[in-house]
Amino acid sequence: MLRPTHNGDRYELTSPTAMPQAAGFLWNQKMMIQITCRGYATAQYMQPEPAKYAHAPNLEAKTFMQPEQNYYAHHPGRFFYIKDEETGELFSAPYEPVRTPVDSYNFSVGKSNLEWTIEHLGVRVELTLGLPVADVVELWSLRVTNISGRARKLSVYPYFPIGYMSWMNQSGEYRADLGGVVASSVTPYQKVADYFKQKDFKDKTYFLCEQAPDAWEVRQSAFEGEGTLNRPAAIDAEQLSGSDARYETPTAVVQYRVALADGEARDYRFIFGPAFDDAEIKAVRDKYLSAEAFKATAADYAAYIAGGPGCLRIETPDADLDNFVNNWLPRQVFYHGDVNRLSTDPQTRNYLQDNMGMSFIKPSVMRKAFLHALSQQEASGAMPDGILLAEGAELKYINQVPHTDHCVWLPVALKVYLDETGDYDILNEDVVGADSGVALTVSERVSSAMDWLLQARDKRGLSYIAQGDWCDPMNMVGYKGRGVSGWLTVATAYALNLWAEICETTGASSSLAESAKHFRAGARNVNRAANEHLWDGDWFARGITDDDVVFGTSKDKEGRIWLNPQAWAILGGAANAGQRASMLAQVDEQLCTPYGVQMFAPPFSAMRDDVGRVTQKHPGSAENGAVYNHAAVFYIYSLYTIGEGDRAYKLLRQMLPGPSEADYLQRGQLPVFIPNYYRGAYKEYPRTAGRSSQLFNTGTVSWAYQCFVEGLCGLKGSSDGLTINPQLPAHWDGMKVVRQFRHATFNVSIQRADVSEIQVWQDGNRLTENVIKGIVAGGAYALEVLIPR
Amino acid sequence: MLRPTHNGDRYELTSPTAMPQAAGFLWNQKMMIQITCRGYATAQYMQPEPAKYAHAPNLEAKTFMQPEQNYYAHHPGRFFYIKDEETGELFSAPYEPVRTPVDSYNFSVGKSNLEWTIEHLGVRVELTLGLPVADVVELWSLRVTNISGRARKLSVYPYFPIGYMSWMNQSGEYRADLGGVVASSVTPYQKVADYFKQKDFKDKTYFLCEQAPDAWEVRQSAFEGEGTLNRPAAIDAEQLSGSDARYETPTAVVQYRVALADGEARDYRFIFGPAFDDAEIKAVRDKYLSAEAFKATAADYAAYIAGGPGCLRIETPDADLDNFVNNWLPRQVFYHGDVNRLSTDPQTRNYLQDNMGMSFIKPSVMRKAFLHALSQQEASGAMPDGILLAEGAELKYINQVPHTDHCVWLPVALKVYLDETGDYDILNEDVVGADSGVALTVSERVSSAMDWLLQARDKRGLSYIAQGDWCDPMNMVGYKGRGVSGWLTVATAYALNLWAEICETTGASSSLAESAKHFRAGARNVNRAANEHLWDGDWFARGITDDDVVFGTSKDKEGRIWLNPQAWAILGGAANAGQRASMLAQVDEQLCTPYGVQMFAPPFSAMRDDVGRVTQKHPGSAENGAVYNHAAVFYIYSLYTIGEGDRAYKLLRQMLPGPSEADYLQRGQLPVFIPNYYRGAYKEYPRTAGRSSQLFNTGTVSWAYQCFVEGLCGLKGSSDGLTINPQLPAHWDGMKVVRQFRHATFNVSIQRADVSEIQVWQDGNRLTENVIKGIVAGGAYALEVLIPR
Repeated sequence: MLRPTHNGDRYELTSPTAMPQAAGFLWNQKMMIQITCRGYATAQYMQPEPAKYAHAPNLEAKTFMQPEQNYYAHHPGRFFYIKDEETGELFSAPYEPVRTPVDSYNFSVGKSNLEWTIEHLGVRVELTLGLPVADVVELWSLRVTNISGRARKLSVYPYFPIGYMSWMNQSGEYRADLGGVVASSVTPYQKVADYFKQKDFKDKTYFLCEQAPDAWEVRQSAFEGEGTLNRPAAIDAEQLSGSDARYETPTAVVQYRVALADGEARDYRFIFGPAFDDAEIKAVRDKYLSAEAFKATAADYAAYIAGGPGCLRIETPDADLDNFVNNWLPRQVFYHGDVNRLSTDPQTRNYLQDNMGMSFIKPSVMRKAFLHALSQQEASGAMPDGILLAEGAELKYINQVPHTDHCVWLPVALKVYLDETGDYDILNEDVVGADSGVALTVSERVSSAMDWLLQARDKRGLSYIAQGDWCDPMNMVGYKGRGVSGWLTVATAYALNLWAEICETTGASSSLAESAKHFRAGARNVNRAANEHLWDGDWFARGITDDDVVFGTSKDKEGRIWLNPQAWAILGGAANAGQRASMLAQVDEQLCTPYGVQMFAPPFSAMRDDVGRVTQKHPGSAENGAVYNHAAVFYIYSLYTIGEGDRAYKLLRQMLPGPSEADYLQRGQLPVFIPNYYRGAYKEYPRTAGRSSQLFNTGTVSWAYQCFVEGLCGLKGSSDGLTINPQLPAHWDGMKVVRQFRHATFNVSIQRADVSEIQVWQDGNRLTENVIKGIVAGGAYALEVLIPR
Repeated sequence: MLRPTHNGDRYELTSPTAMPQAAGFLWNQKMMIQITCRGYATAQYMQPEPAKYAHAPNLEAKTFMQPEQNYYAHHPGRFFYIKDEETGELFSAPYEPVRTPVDSYNFSVGKSNLEWTIEHLGVRVELTLGLPVADVVELWSLRVTNISGRARKLSVYPYFPIGYMSWMNQSGEYRADLGGVVASSVTPYQKVADYFKQKDFKDKTYFLCEQAPDAWEVRQSAFEGEGTLNRPAAIDAEQLSGSDARYETPTAVVQYRVALADGEARDYRFIFGPAFDDAEIKAVRDKYLSAEAFKATAADYAAYIAGGPGCLRIETPDADLDNFVNNWLPRQVFYHGDVNRLSTDPQTRNYLQDNMGMSFIKPSVMRKAFLHALSQQEASGAMPDGILLAEGAELKYINQVPHTDHCVWLPVALKVYLDETGDYDILNEDVVGADSGVALTVSERVSSAMDWLLQARDKRGLSYIAQGDWCDPMNMVGYKGRGVSGWLTVATAYALNLWAEICETTGASSSLAESAKHFRAGARNVNRAANEHLWDGDWFARGITDDDVVFGTSKDKEGRIWLNPQAWAILGGAANAGQRASMLAQVDEQLCTPYGVQMFAPPFSAMRDDVGRVTQKHPGSAENGAVYNHAAVFYIYSLYTIGEGDRAYKLLRQMLPGPSEADYLQRGQLPVFIPNYYRGAYKEYPRTAGRSSQLFNTGTVSWAYQCFVEGLCGLKGSSDGLTINPQLPAHWDGMKVVRQFRHATFNVSIQRADVSEIQVWQDGNRLTENVIKGIVAGGAYALEVLIPR
């Protein structure tokens, strides 16, 4: 079977060719590695900006993480050649670079390690990759077993290409004293000031072997010779030549010559990573490179990952969904909140949303992040384009381009946190401004941000877009200072209403009650303007350009209808019931595809320079008409808020590959994360539509988790308890849920029944309000929920 | 024979494996292509900054041209697969990516085209690459001949990988209307201002076929499938699949299925390059893609290259040397002066020296460039770090780092121009400052630059180095504002003396005579300071750091002796005869290697942070102890100025590979250009010492040509004539020279004879002064020169 299957919480793939880009990823507090089923790998660590210890064979651009990585023979990876010394036959595990069809293949992606088992030429190769919690080091186990029924002579060659480290300085040699290959380089610089930033960089890459190898190759060109990577010349020789690399591309290849009796196995361990100097390499070796240390490290790491378990366990008719929601989605949420995409300057909206998800995993992390973000608020009330996390960090890339939406995310993220924790005390926390030194409470700061949103509007009452809103590349709608964002207008109303609701809920002071009135009025005003200027008859337009061109309307041949204005008009109240009905119908007709709902359609085929960069992107990719999951999940969430649970579930399920084999193959991804997009342009480019970006950094996941918890399961917190309002898809008869909430456990059984409205039963009694109040920490609650057929 | 041989002025190599990096290069007014004997290629064009139309398979860093390119299977290149349709046997021409040992191989590098002839499997493949004069388009001819003695069925697959064009947008398809593959992309941008710079970029890459192919592949992954580049899956199939690329890495592969009778040949023509739109592609096709147009274009291009012929033809005992000096060296000098390294902001010293060489080729180019450079002089007299050549150009990379030597190159370059042309009128030209609008004469500007050099010295009288002098990466000697350069100090004396000499020669005005005295006194003062503070006993030190540490002295274990301070102390007069003798002996002992003279020794093995970046470079590479030809040639030139012709010639000849086969193989380069360096660190890393950087951008060539013209041949211009003072190496009995000088032709025969001093004979009469005066344009002069045995 070509589709992946799950084995416990692991996902397994039994062919390296069916979904060649399928990958797993591991992270810890300092690094991330994504590795494909075939052995290609992308690893980054922080020093403090993202850096690499295994490189492409040429000088690679430093850039933010790109979707849809392109792999090629010399792409960085981790490979193990196996040669039969008697016949010269060769294969490589996991699969690259030899690409031999093997007798059996299994790639198993776990939450805390990745494993491969390959059988070929009567040899079983078992590989495991793990990480420690807080060091930048890959831990590789290799077991080679003779399953051929006769004695064998083999050579085993781990091959860890190191690549083009630096144009200034690179070299490598086998270091008997350290027990492995050490490659050295110097990060280039031109301006003196950069020297002082870089002089403590970990410019060495080590590949250490627990058992001393019989031979090695450290120069890439000596390894390949006139051969090729699928048949390197050095492997054709009896023994590797012991080369070094001197301003030549270094590599790490070692050779073990081994005689195995039938059934005999040999175990090897290796570590791979960056270091500053020999002393650090020695220390890493001493700490990690032994069977005992591997075992202890694996246990520590599993415990670390288990420390972000999520608040939901479900049992539904869809086992793949259960596995995803119970294991993989909270892991992905945890990843985002744990390391902030391994960036020192996450975009403010990403930082807030990524941490918003931590409300369900580790609320204290969200609390701290929220206060940290607010500490970088500007005096005007505006939020900056990125939140600086490390000393010396700077706003880079897209964070140097002014966007106007960042304030919106404050009440959005805060509301989730408050609903989950009831921690309204946070509103009274003092936050000292990083620049100003002025202390203001959280309430004051959020109110100030809301007032900033209210004033950042034009005479019509519509929100300026400047060089972008949530959709980064819509950068030329308003760069002259006049253009407005339809989405941001209706999103402003949503933010204002959320904040007003929080103010109303606390009701603690008359000033908060006053604020609530003020912001409610502001929201009404905003929504009025949206309806007056942006309602196109069947949906809301996306915006109005500097030159007063309304776009995202029925008149447009490309970019005719955008998902975000519809979703947020529902959330923020701009749309009435009639408008919602026509919007939903239009979304169904124009945006829904077998792989999810597109961000807009039709995609732009060429630059429209009053819209900007999004229109230059490849149709169907990234933001240009993709199934951009972040936009999709806003819409899904909005559907749950209006009781459209069946419609919502269909789209939510489309965020995962499967369940059909054809769908898995088209997506090309294991269901262990939600990617930032699937290719769109379903009508224009059906061949590529649905393909996963393979990029697991996405603001989608916090919202998706919220959709499962609060939408599908309908177990949403409020200031004084837990409300119960599940919205199962029409084809489900029921489901079971275990929900952790405010330190209590809720065992909830949901069943269809002949009822006209939802009934919640506790200990044989039907609740009148469908809310559990007075929750006791440590308590266990068993609930029976009956829902209409 | 593995060493290259020359065939007329062409260089030929008969093995693709002996010198795998060996390459030829072609350029025109808008582009450059360097292509190896095996088919890997690096091409750049200007729009206006350097750009590429064939890319690496991953996102590549934009950077200045790097030495010692690393090639790998997917590196950009131009390849032609040949498959025997009856047996399935496969090879590729020129050699990559299949890497099949072929029956016969010839790579022939000409001045205006590159050719390969490969025979294998009974098939002869002949390839020719040419360029037009002023468009960015590669012209490829392919002839396939059946030499097997029987009828054959073949498939022929030109494979031009296009690579990862852009993360924003890339696609490709076969365009029957245009007759080839067209790949499209959008150059990414993030800041709005960049959009307007980029919107007219040539973001399309075309590969057009004169004859419509039978099939094609436009998606790289469809081409390779589960095969590899040396056996692509699509080639295993009977016919290419006709794929397209949609946000996938595009490629250009076409297939011709061809039946050939014995002896039958088939001719194909292709063009490859970048374009803005379909209309441009169509226009390029119409203009170039025919047998007639190829022929006419080749003739035009040959005429263009012939337009930079040099002023010297020699006939010596060394035929390789003759070929180089008569053909390749002037071509390389012409390249530098013609396109200024395809940069919009050449470093000032490079711009002046590169154009200085044009004094021998096309003096009017030098004249114009000199005036252009002076127009960017600052009000203080200082020269900027780079000279802007295009509208909108900016100082980039190293040109953002302050260097203090740029003024030195004004009189150096000017003196060569004046000696060659006698055009002293240039001194009275008015030059309007680009910033100031102030008009000053050339004399006034050069004097002002010399005064700037005089004042840019410390209390000791030594020249400040700031963040660098000629040696770019010596960037931390003086970044605090106190450190001084030993080289720049003695070079300042040379510049002052040269300028004083020019002033004296013109003698036109009393003010110039006054200037001459002033600058002569300045030079004496500078040299006195150099001797007081920098003479180390046997050589001059390299400098004194911000913290008053003298370096480049006998006390240093690394960087003990530097070539430049010695060379320029000879040129500028800081060194007396006794000092020169000890310096020369120390250079011989410490710096001379079989591959040339090192820039300094021993190389630094680790960062010395009071010296800076040079010490971080890999030992033996680039500036860190390399045989850095630019430094070597200064020294060689200085040797000629003091009559050390034998010693000079030995080093000059080392700039070329050969003549021994072992030397060619070690250098790994064809003798068609002087590279910027050969690896040094001969004592530390003998395996790699001597290896060519393969980078043909170097200030070396103007000086090398000057050494041949004025040193070896001793035919140097002066204000009123041509002086004759050849300095042949001791082992030569004589040589013949044809020298073009001031529109006259000098046929010079030089012979050893029993004479005690040089004798010059013209028409049977011995000259008293060894100077030809009163040269008549259009005249021909026959000279017999007798030199002592």
